[in-house]
Amino acid sequence: MEALKQRICREGRILPGSIVKVDSFLNHQVDTRFLGEIADEFARHIDVTKATKILTAEASGIALAAICSYRYGIPMVFAKKAKSDNIEGGLYKSEVYSYTYQKKVTLICAQDWVTADDRVLIVDDFMANGEAMRGLIQIVEMAGAELVGIGCAIEKGFQHGGDKLRAAGYPLTSLAIIDRADENGFQFR
Amino acid sequence: MEALKQRICREGRILPGSIVKVDSFLNHQVDTRFLGEIADEFARHIDVTKATKILTAEASGIALAAICSYRYGIPMVFAKKAKSDNIEGGLYKSEVYSYTYQKKVTLICAQDWVTADDRVLIVDDFMANGEAMRGLIQIVEMAGAELVGIGCAIEKGFQHGGDKLRAAGYPLTSLAIIDRADENGFQFR
Repeated sequence: MEALKQRICREGRILPGSIVKVDSFLNHQVDTRFLGEIADEFARHIDVTKATKILTAEASGIALAAICSYRYGIPMVFAKKAKSDNIEGGLYKSEVYSYTYQKKVTLICAQDWVTADDRVLIVDDFMANGEAMRGLIQIVEMAGAELVGIGCAIEKGFQHGGDKLRAAGYPLTSLAIIDRADENGFQFR
Repeated sequence: MEALKQRICREGRILPGSIVKVDSFLNHQVDTRFLGEIADEFARHIDVTKATKILTAEASGIALAAICSYRYGIPMVFAKKAKSDNIEGGLYKSEVYSYTYQKKVTLICAQDWVTADDRVLIVDDFMANGEAMRGLIQIVEMAGAELVGIGCAIEKGFQHGGDKLRAAGYPLTSLAIIDRADENGFQFR
């Protein structure tokens, strides 16, 4: 998606360790009008009319999933990172390693909201090692739901999470794949 | 907001300790079409055209803030709960006590995204003791921004966070105030 790549080049910052920050429009301050364009771009690559539900992970996936949900007219569910006592039994749990927090977190999703009758579109703003995506896919599989597609706004190609998913046959659509982020700037696949 | 109260009565569950769960439509599964109605209801009570930015707290406030942002045509910012190493200097920090997690958390917001030029609308899905709201207000005040209004979908009136804010003169709009949630069901103010 050309507009997304341009925006990454214009506003994105690269921190030591190839950490990519796009917090002016995607995951701290959020330009929801632009998220609407991203939602439309997903819909050009994925048959979103098949989906009954959108699944994402808290926290930064929620805004994009909400805009997709609103535009496609289907509900969304966000998997929570285990910590709250506010969630009782009847849960799908998937343990993933968080690159952001450098530790294991458990994604949890109430069994009430993703069922075998659902056709699920997974959406996330960012993918690095693909652990969160793997956790979301596992929730869909535990539910016996159908996976319609996986939409990712920005993939950090050099961390190969997306490559692993594609090699495993998962229907991944990434709108911008960053293959290098260093002192020379961004290079896209 | 009558439709919200009806939905709380129909789908809400009450757990021991007067914990109110509305995770079928508000903060786990999310009915974003209904959030659009909530956004419109806020706009009937608050002059949202004055606002340049919407501020909320992760995680469950993000979906509602995103829909408000999308409908009003202004960007949103979500304050993060301190834990990520991904956020460097130039931050507003506000320490609040989280009723959900029974511990102190620090709300953080990059100074880049809320400034003295902003007129801020604070939005959140839920208010209990009002600590998160207090933290968000503090961020607005630290930034020297103008507070246009505070929109809360569901206020737990019996925990008096909202009463404290109103007594202090803050412009709080809660669309459903629950004054009792026990074995007899919900009672609204």
